[in-house]
Amino acid sequence: MEFARPLPSYLVQRYHGWKATTYSENKAWYKRLATEGQRPRAMVISCCDSRVHVTSIFGADQGEFFIHRNIANLVPPYEQDDARHGTSAAIEYAVTALKVAHLIVLGHSQCGGVQGCIDMCKGNAPQLEAKESFVGRWMDVLKPKFETVAGIEDSAEQARQFERQAVVASLENLMTFPFVESAVKEGELSLHGLWTDIGEGGLECYDPATGKFHEV
Amino acid sequence: MEFARPLPSYLVQRYHGWKATTYSENKAWYKRLATEGQRPRAMVISCCDSRVHVTSIFGADQGEFFIHRNIANLVPPYEQDDARHGTSAAIEYAVTALKVAHLIVLGHSQCGGVQGCIDMCKGNAPQLEAKESFVGRWMDVLKPKFETVAGIEDSAEQARQFERQAVVASLENLMTFPFVESAVKEGELSLHGLWTDIGEGGLECYDPATGKFHEV
Amino acid sequence: MEFARPLPSYLVQRYHGWKATTYSENKAWYKRLATEGQRPRAMVISCCDSRVHVTSIFGADQGEFFIHRNIANLVPPYEQDDARHGTSAAIEYAVTALKVAHLIVLGHSQCGGVQGCIDMCKGNAPQLEAKESFVGRWMDVLKPKFETVAGIEDSAEQARQFERQAVVASLENLMTFPFVESAVKEGELSLHGLWTDIGEGGLECYDPATGKFHEV
Amino acid sequence: MEFARPLPSYLVQRYHGWKATTYSENKAWYKRLATEGQRPRAMVISCCDSRVHVTSIFGADQGEFFIHRNIANLVPPYEQDDARHGTSAAIEYAVTALKVAHLIVLGHSQCGGVQGCIDMCKGNAPQLEAKESFVGRWMDVLKPKFETVAGIEDSAEQARQFERQAVVASLENLMTFPFVESAVKEGELSLHGLWTDIGEGGLECYDPATGKFHEV
Repeated sequence: MEFARPLPSYLVQRYHGWKATTYSENKAWYKRLATEGQRPRAMVISCCDSRVHVTSIFGADQGEFFIHRNIANLVPPYEQDDARHGTSAAIEYAVTALKVAHLIVLGHSQCGGVQGCIDMCKGNAPQLEAKESFVGRWMDVLKPKFETVAGIEDSAEQARQFERQAVVASLENLMTFPFVESAVKEGELSLHGLWTDIGEGGLECYDPATGKFHEV
Repeated sequence: MEFARPLPSYLVQRYHGWKATTYSENKAWYKRLATEGQRPRAMVISCCDSRVHVTSIFGADQGEFFIHRNIANLVPPYEQDDARHGTSAAIEYAVTALKVAHLIVLGHSQCGGVQGCIDMCKGNAPQLEAKESFVGRWMDVLKPKFETVAGIEDSAEQARQFERQAVVASLENLMTFPFVESAVKEGELSLHGLWTDIGEGGLECYDPATGKFHEV
Repeated sequence: MEFARPLPSYLVQRYHGWKATTYSENKAWYKRLATEGQRPRAMVISCCDSRVHVTSIFGADQGEFFIHRNIANLVPPYEQDDARHGTSAAIEYAVTALKVAHLIVLGHSQCGGVQGCIDMCKGNAPQLEAKESFVGRWMDVLKPKFETVAGIEDSAEQARQFERQAVVASLENLMTFPFVESAVKEGELSLHGLWTDIGEGGLECYDPATGKFHEV
Repeated sequence: MEFARPLPSYLVQRYHGWKATTYSENKAWYKRLATEGQRPRAMVISCCDSRVHVTSIFGADQGEFFIHRNIANLVPPYEQDDARHGTSAAIEYAVTALKVAHLIVLGHSQCGGVQGCIDMCKGNAPQLEAKESFVGRWMDVLKPKFETVAGIEDSAEQARQFERQAVVASLENLMTFPFVESAVKEGELSLHGLWTDIGEGGLECYDPATGKFHEV
């Protein structure tokens, strides 16, 4: 393990600044969070993308959101096999152990993962099609939705619509999990689909009545 | 899709507050991030736990960190099979497409996933041992490290040490990815292992020279 | 060129320390900065004064801020003539080539340049009034603002207010540059005026609504 | 002045962190610096480039270096005319008012300004040749040195050598200032020429005996 390195000093400096201010001013709350455990009211599934900060957009405090972040905020369908399922594990923990009341899927504009999936669907990304591409195999989850946007000629508009479909696909796949479906039916859990425009700072919510996304 | 619901109004309100302040004050920067794409200097792998906010601890701006969050901040070993690998996809994207310079694994105290793994290793968690438990199968990744802490009698101390071992296991597994290993050897990527104490606001860094974690 | 001398040994020693620690820990990031070029999100214009460290105040990492430092953090008005304009060149490069999103003018307390301008305005500095004084001719930029503070009797308070006016003057002059004005109007650039109190560690931000500086 | 905006919140947060740690721990020193004035032992002239941090390389404390930063760390020759001379003003203040003992010119690799000058000298940059280009007119200072590197075929090597010549030109121009020349001759001031390699973390010092730069 000789490869592990000390933390860059500017991050050490910023950490000490955080400790002396934010932590220090909220010490009692942090101690309670440690002693009593977390009790988040919502789970958020968003993208790893560095431009998406759900805690910033929603002014979230420590302890409010249980957050899973993966490439393109995807939820694969419920599957029982011998494989590891990191996303499914996070959802299982949030819904069955923490009993969150809300489950929010947050998509976003300029998503590199979604763009990669479009490239695959158009036959332009042999490197992602390769069996050993982790990103390619992950984005396969979204492929079935491509037919809903295949006819859109403007490529930027097509990408924006496909990003929204990634949210819809994740919501649909969430309902294939028995524990999600039953919590939703019991009224203990509600699902929400969002899409944010990074450059414009917009936020749209999926409206089940129209099947479309509307500005909140 | 009748199950999807509108966003809770307190979140709508907070979003509008963010848009009128943070977004508005940084509009130019958000537009550039959208137009030019992200260029994060580091990837962070942390836990979904609602009490762990890496952007807060490090005063991070939008665009600085590419963040993957899963249960117990685990990196499984490199595997080539037909399964989906969400964590591996995130690492592949960060290292090969974004070419991040730092990869930070951030563990934390009071980790529910790590505690579940201890319970399994002690034979106290049949529900996690069940084949259909996503959390159980995910935490299997950490099981081989249990021998390093099995002899610790104080259960709280044992958990703290096992949480640190989760970071070490992830660092070791990272090095089984050919593209991580080669980037580290070329000096293009450095790995860092951290553990934070939620209640005390502490931050420790893994020191390869001693094999221990030290306060930064 | 016989006058050039070797570097003092205490600086050589510190450099080697930096190379073995900070550089070594961030090697991958430095290499990327060299290969891919800088992409700073902000330009800062501050004083040469040795007591003003913008990178320290803001925990800035290498690559974050494009920094121009001159006497009294002044921006002269936009001028097209045959003369060299070092400050204008730095602003042009930051805004048109690097397309920074923020432009911050940082003033400070105990500013020797601003004090010199007060002395000139009060007729107490013939040596600065002399045609050959570079400092005097440079500080002429600020003279028109003296009327805003001429009535303040307490000389320390007058100096503090004039330092803040130096920031306001620079912001106003920035808007005379066509490329700054158009970037601001397009929402691609935002301007910020700050003043820091060296002894107290205070930081104030210019508030356009009140025309005053307020603690951040 | 409606265009001036509040400071981005992540910078506000970092500032408060700095105040609670670095400032707080060094309060007495900051207060002395404010009360007694600065007494820097050296002036540094370096580039605005965000990748060049002289305070980091030399572990500099508040109060140590009087720093002027402009495009390509250039010193124009001594000139007496009606124009403003920001760089000359900074040098005059450092040498005659502060009486610094060292004057260091720090060049660096991958310098955009120097590259622009090469492009002009090769006839490839009509936009920089345009009369209204501030960067172009500023970089004219370096043009006379191009003949020393014109014969180098490898363009990267040519740029590295021209960056070093920018340091030499600045040193030579410094000696055209009567107050610099006399301070050097009196043994009250020594000049130093440095060049740093951003990616490799290297530091070279100009050696007047050989006319070359050598690793320190």
